[in-house]
This record gives sequence, C-alpha cells and structure tokens, in this order.
Amino acid sequence: MCDGKDHDHNRRKVMKFTGAVGMGAMLAGPMNVFASPAAGNIQSRGYAAFDESGKLKPWKFERRPVGDNDVLIDIKFASICHSDIHQEKGHWGKQKYPQVPGHEIVGVVAAVGKNVTKFKVGDRAGVGCMVGNHNHHHDTDEEQYNPDTIFTYGYPDDRSPTGISQGGYSNNIVVEENFVMHVPENISFEEAAPLMCAGITTYSPLMRADIKPGMKVGIAGIGGLGHMAIKFAVSKGAEVYAFTTSPSKVKDILAFGAKEAVVVDDLSKLGAYNGQMDYLLSTIPYDFNVAAYAAIVKPYGTFTQVGMPIKSEVTVNALYLAFSRVNFNASLIGGIKETQEMVNYCAANNILPKIQKIKANQINDAWESVVNKEARYRYVIDAATF
Amino acid sequence: MCDGKDHDHNRRKVMKFTGAVGMGAMLAGPMNVFASPAAGNIQSRGYAAFDESGKLKPWKFERRPVGDNDVLIDIKFASICHSDIHQEKGHWGKQKYPQVPGHEIVGVVAAVGKNVTKFKVGDRAGVGCMVGNHNHHHDTDEEQYNPDTIFTYGYPDDRSPTGISQGGYSNNIVVEENFVMHVPENISFEEAAPLMCAGITTYSPLMRADIKPGMKVGIAGIGGLGHMAIKFAVSKGAEVYAFTTSPSKVKDILAFGAKEAVVVDDLSKLGAYNGQMDYLLSTIPYDFNVAAYAAIVKPYGTFTQVGMPIKSEVTVNALYLAFSRVNFNASLIGGIKETQEMVNYCAANNILPKIQKIKANQINDAWESVVNKEARYRYVIDAATF
Ligand SMILES: NC(=O)c1ccc[n+]([C@@H]2O[C@H](COP(=O)([O-])OP(=O)(O)OC[C@H]3O[C@@H](n4cnc5c(N)ncnc54)[C@H](OP(=O)(O)O)[C@@H]3O)[C@@H](O)[C@H]2O)c1
Ligand SMILES: NC(=O)c1ccc[n+]([C@@H]2O[C@H](COP(=O)([O-])OP(=O)(O)OC[C@H]3O[C@@H](n4cnc5c(N)ncnc54)[C@H](OP(=O)(O)O)[C@@H]3O)[C@@H](O)[C@H]2O)c1
Ligand SMILES: [Zn+2]
Ligand SMILES: [Zn+2]
Repeated sequence: MCDGKDHDHNRRKVMKFTGAVGMGAMLAGPMNVFASPAAGNIQSRGYAAFDESGKLKPWKFERRPVGDNDVLIDIKFASICHSDIHQEKGHWGKQKYPQVPGHEIVGVVAAVGKNVTKFKVGDRAGVGCMVGNHNHHHDTDEEQYNPDTIFTYGYPDDRSPTGISQGGYSNNIVVEENFVMHVPENISFEEAAPLMCAGITTYSPLMRADIKPGMKVGIAGIGGLGHMAIKFAVSKGAEVYAFTTSPSKVKDILAFGAKEAVVVDDLSKLGAYNGQMDYLLSTIPYDFNVAAYAAIVKPYGTFTQVGMPIKSEVTVNALYLAFSRVNFNASLIGGIKETQEMVNYCAANNILPKIQKIKANQINDAWESVVNKEARYRYVIDAATF
Repeated sequence: MCDGKDHDHNRRKVMKFTGAVGMGAMLAGPMNVFASPAAGNIQSRGYAAFDESGKLKPWKFERRPVGDNDVLIDIKFASICHSDIHQEKGHWGKQKYPQVPGHEIVGVVAAVGKNVTKFKVGDRAGVGCMVGNHNHHHDTDEEQYNPDTIFTYGYPDDRSPTGISQGGYSNNIVVEENFVMHVPENISFEEAAPLMCAGITTYSPLMRADIKPGMKVGIAGIGGLGHMAIKFAVSKGAEVYAFTTSPSKVKDILAFGAKEAVVVDDLSKLGAYNGQMDYLLSTIPYDFNVAAYAAIVKPYGTFTQVGMPIKSEVTVNALYLAFSRVNFNASLIGGIKETQEMVNYCAANNILPKIQKIKANQINDAWESVVNKEARYRYVIDAATF
C-alpha cells in the first residue's frame, strides 16, 4: 500500500485504493493496512507561500489518502501561471497559508481508487485549475462555474489534512478522476503542463467566438496565456493582431504566426486599429483601460477578458464602451471535457507553448520575471527538484 | 426680421432666414438687415452653471443667427436629466462656463432657415442631446456615435457666440433641422420633454434587446430614465423586475406596470434573482458593482449600462462577470430617426413620464432632489419663467 514516502516506489505500483474518501471518513476495505486515516495520508514535498510576500519556501505536507474516485499523480512538471502569483500575494483576497500554488500539472498516475475507470497506473495525466467537487458529483460540462467545484489550491477542502487544497508546485497530487486529463504521448510532459490552464483559458473563449478563417482576432497581453491564444487563433485561420507592451516580444509574436505585433507603449497606438477586430481577447493581468481596447473591436463585436487583476477588478469607461458598441465579457478557464478536447487539439496540431525549464529553487526568481514581463513565455518547474 | 429681443414677436413671425451659418460666416441675402453678424445673433435668457458648484444662476447670452438649415425654437419646457448635473459639476471632465445645461427640450418653431423642409413656423418641436454636425452632414442613423456630432450643451461649436453649444434651460434654441423631432398633438409639451433624452436612452437599448412578451427584463435605478424603461418594457409585454434602492418608490413602480419592485438595500438582495433576467438595463448614475447586477442575468444574456457615473467609470469584477457569463455593454441615447420613432410610439401607446413642473428659480433645489433620489420622476422647467 502507498505510504506516500517512496515516490518511485509508489509510481510503479499497480494498485487500486479501496478506501472511502473525504469528510474525515475512515479508510476501509482490504487494502487498508493503516490504523487511522492520518496514516493513509500521502506525504508530499513542494514549495509553499507562507505569507503575502510572494516568496515561496520548501515545505513538507500531507495530502488526503487516495479515495475511491481519486487518482494519485506523481508530478513530472508544474508550470507557473500569473494566477499563482496573484493568489499567493493576496491580490484576490486573504489566503490561508502555508499554501502550495500551481495548477498546470502533468505527471504519471501512481495509484487509482477502486471506482476509477478512466485512468490506470502509468498513464500520462494532466491537472488544471480544478481537482474535485464538494458533493463528489460531476454533472456539468462547465465545472468551472459550479459552486461545488474545488479549485486546485487554497480552496476549502475538508478532505485535505491542511483544510485547503494544495497545488502542483509539488512532487505529487491527489485528484478526483473526473478532473484529470489524458496527455497524449506525442506531447512532452514539460510542454503539456502550460496547456492545463494557459491553454484551456484561451482555447475556450476563442472556440466560443467561433473563429473563422480570415477573421481579425486581437490578443492583448502576450505572456503565458497570450502566446497560446495567438497560436490557437492562427490555427483557426484568423488574422491575428497581437497587442503587446514589450517591443522585445515582436519577433517571437510574428514567429507564433501573428500578422501584426502592435507595441502599445501608449494607448493612442490603438487608434489605428479602431473598429477593426472581429474579436478581442485580453490576458492583461492588472487594471487597464478596458474601453480603449474595446474600441478596436468592430461595433457589436465581443471583447473577452481573461486576465484577473487585483481584486479581479477592471475599470470600464461606460461612455467609451457605448461608443464602441462592443460587448464585454469575461471567461474562466474551461470545462474538463473541453480541456481534454484542447489537449487533443494541441497534440494533433502541434500547438505547444514556448517554455523555459527551471528548478524548484528558481521559482522565486521566475515569479519576479513573470511580473516584469520577462518570461518567454512559460516557466516550467521540474518536479524532480522539489 | 428677428432681432432676438422680442420672444413672442419672434415666435409668431413666419419667415425664412437666408444667412450662411457657422464658422463666423457673414449673414447674407435679402432678409439680412444687420450690419454685422453679431447683430443677427439670437438673444436668449436661461440658467447657467458658472463653476462646478452645481448651482445655476440666471444668465443672458447670445445664440448664433438662424442659418439656412436651422430651426429656431421658442422653448416651452425643458426637463432635468441627471446628465445635466454630472456635466456641470465636472464629473465627466472640465467644462467651459458659463454653460446652460438642458437637453430635454420642447417648444414651438419660431423661425426656419431657407433650406429647411421638415419644419415650419408654429410646429411643435423637440430637441434632445444633439443639435448639429460640425460638417453640416447628416448621413447616419446613429448620429450619437458620429465624431462630428455637436451635443446640445458645453460642446465646442464655432458658430456659437460663446464658443460652446448652450442647452435648453433657456427660452429659445437654434438647432439644425435634422436634429429636431416632431411632437404629436396628443402629447403635452411638458410630458414630451423627458422623452428627448430619458425616453430615447431607454427605448433604444430595449428595442435592440428585442424584448418579446414574457421575457424577464430587469431595470436597475428607477429615476427619470428608469421609470420610462419600465414603461417601455411593460409595453412590449415583458415581465419587468425593477431594482431600486428606494423603498418609497415601490408603489409607483408597480403602478408603472412592473411585476416586481425589488428593494436592493443590500447587494445580497439580488441573490434571489440570480441568472433569471433575459435582459438587464441599468441607469445607476454612480459607480456600482456591475458584476453583482450582471449575475441576475441568464448566462449569455446581455446587461446594458446607460448610467454615466463620475468619469463615466464603472468597476467590473472580471471573475464574477466570468461566472455570470453575461455580456456587458453600454448605450448612448439613440439616433434621431429612432428618437422620432420613439416619440411616435409614446404618442400612440400613451407612454408618458411622471413629471413635476417647476419654475426656473426652483432648479437648484430640484437638482439636489435628483441627487437625493427624491425626484418623482422628472422635473420639468416651465420656460416661461426664465
Ligand atoms: N480567467 C481565467 O480563468 C484565468 C486563467 C489563467 C490566468 N488568468 C489570468 O490571466 C492573466 C495573465 O496570466 P499569464 O499567466 O498569461 O500572465 P503573464 O504570463 O504574466 O502574461 C501577461 C502579459 O500581460 C502583459 N502585461 C503584464 N503586466 C501588464 C500591465 N501592468 N499592463 C499591461 N499589460 C501587462 C504582458 O504582456 P506584454 O509584454 O505583451 O504586454 C504580460 O506578459 C493573469 O491575470 C492571470 O491571473 C486567468
Ligand atoms: N447613456 C446615455 O446616453 C444617457 C442619457 C441620459 C442619462 N444618462 C445617465 O443615466 C443616469 C441616470 O439618469 P437619470 O436622469 O435617470 O437620473 P435619476 O433620475 O437620478 O435616476 C437615477 C436613479 O438611480 C438610482 N441611484 C441614484 N444614485 C444611486 C447610487 N449612488 N447608487 C445606486 N443607485 C442610485 C436611483 O434610483 P432608485 O431610487 O430606484 O435606486 C435614482 O433615481 C445618469 O448617470 C445620467 O447621466 C445617460
Ligand atoms: Zn492559471
Ligand atoms: Zn440626458
């Protein structure tokens, strides 16, 4: 039985957990060789935030035992999303610490619960922003909007020994099978990781926008999410206009397939594109002039925000929004089914992030680079270094 | 010829002005008996703001002579829109003073320029937020979004002796004929006035929303605009839910035909209506929690803002907006053709504002009442008292 201490050993074992899960329920069944539920906990190593400083430190912690519907994943790589930084710094509200961030996670299935049918030990697996459901239901295609969904880190979760979910900057993770994606063989682990959040968060609104060949699609903010958005829109035949504040990204942006890279060092630079985009997606992670960007969209077109600034608040000038006649909305990741579809689409079309591999002890520097727009374009942490 | 001094005299004269207009051009032609262009100016009396205090004082000023395409209107009534207050207080930016507000204007045509074909002296006429076009063109159905449109007050206008357009808190006004509405006989002057802005500003987005019988339509902020919005939506067969912060308005709201009046003394009161409205229109004139209101709209429905707060800015929580999956947009008045259509619709369906008539010297008190949500529901100034 998995004692959670021997990482390699766990991964290679082919077993089914049979214990009841969650809400303090006792482990039960033939495989339960432990006296108390705590003994069934999974031992994990990772990097956690301990306060709002934005500095992480190594941390050893416990995860819940693998329940009947759970999958234990030995993490290979976890990548850094700007959301990790926002949340740990308290941009979105007070946090419970220590908290392990990370919701772009890939690895290998090391154990499965007795009811698990979709995964077997040894499978290549990915996990994004969601890891379960408070009622253990799974009855929606848009789990991200379901109030019972448990997000990957910092979310209240009675089953977790720490009281909150703990994320992927770690050597392993326990996830309900319904929240795990299959990762095709032809995508490397390290390139698959960013798909789990940056991929789906841009894929989902772009698919909803029903991009057709020749449509003009604007992407604002070319970081982890933005560079994936360019690739998705290009793959659908769109003429992509990338709006960046970083002149040093222009060459990359054109290499990603964009038709134009527009350096918005001043909002007036947007003027030349007034009323031209069929659709606009913004990943900008801090408050900005929403209506100024909306103005580049055709009247009655749509502008979707996925960037989630401090307090998630953006400022909208209603008068200028009226002038643009643009519909502004926001989008949150995507459903699990859609995430799997996106992973398969990326595998089939060779749509992969541009990544930089780092070790665990480089995380703090990487976070600073992300905030300074220096990431090119996603840092991926080698989980062997936790 | 009109010397602009004798109000009644002017009104009764049947004449066509033949002078060239605007940009300092000289008056010319057989009717021009004056030595200088200034002499052809129209003399006006009104109430003007002299600073950002929100206090108006009587003021005598000049308007441009009646040009070839112009109509001179002897004003009967002008009503008070919250926009008057915002603009004169500098909420939307620095103003040039003295400035006469007022863009809900009705009266009688007193003179017409030689090219005028749509109006004759004696016609009942209405003027809203727009009075002309910098290029004297008129080639759009959505003049409100045309950058050459001249708005009714405080807008740069070379033809105006004061350098800016001067509004309707006044005894007369000179307007390009293309920006004047006919007011049917069966609407009183005083009830017609609020249609010119409050009417069209709510009619236009509601018509775009294509309200069908049985649809659930929410209206937030039940003042001058909001109470008209209820009546329009009710007239289209909608089930109207009015969201008000004023318990004292509930009875009126139900009398206007709303199905429910919801007192939002706390945002949590919105919870019971989550995801229920087919469409939501907000007239709320100060910054508010847009996403909290968006949440009462059905997923993928639309929420239109017409209230224009300080700096026109509203704060949107992108995360909650994402959860709602609602499209947020804004709307500015409506075009001239649509305004005429709305006036005719009101006349045909007896859709009229609930008004309170006041004298010019009550304007300052009325403004305070509007800000304090005490107006029931539109103050209409008797122009004979200027
Ligand atoms: N809705 C969701 O479900 C969801 C999911 C994932 C992430 N997010 C949010 O999406 C945002 C982007 O995430 P990410 O991981 O892609 O971040 P990222 O890698 O840092 O990319 C964001 C890019 O936006 C631009 N940018 C950064 N700061 C800016 C500022 N102050 N003003 C204007 N532009 C700025 C930069 O691009 P340029 O150099 O090109 O200007 C930057 O590279 C974050 O707010 C994150 O929390 C939301
Ligand atoms: N988009 C356009 O073209 C256009 C045209 C005209 C007017 N406007 C704008 O529309 C807004 C409304 O104009 P109006 O003349 O109808 O104003 P109004 O008569 O004062 O009505 C606004 C109503 O909003 C509610 N309200 C007021 N202050 C509030 C606050 N701080 N928080 C929440 N609710 C508040 C009140 O209704 P309850 O008592 O029911 O809560 C108030 O009666 C103004 O901002 C105005 O400038 C825009
Ligand atoms: Zn993310
Ligand atoms: Zn108005």
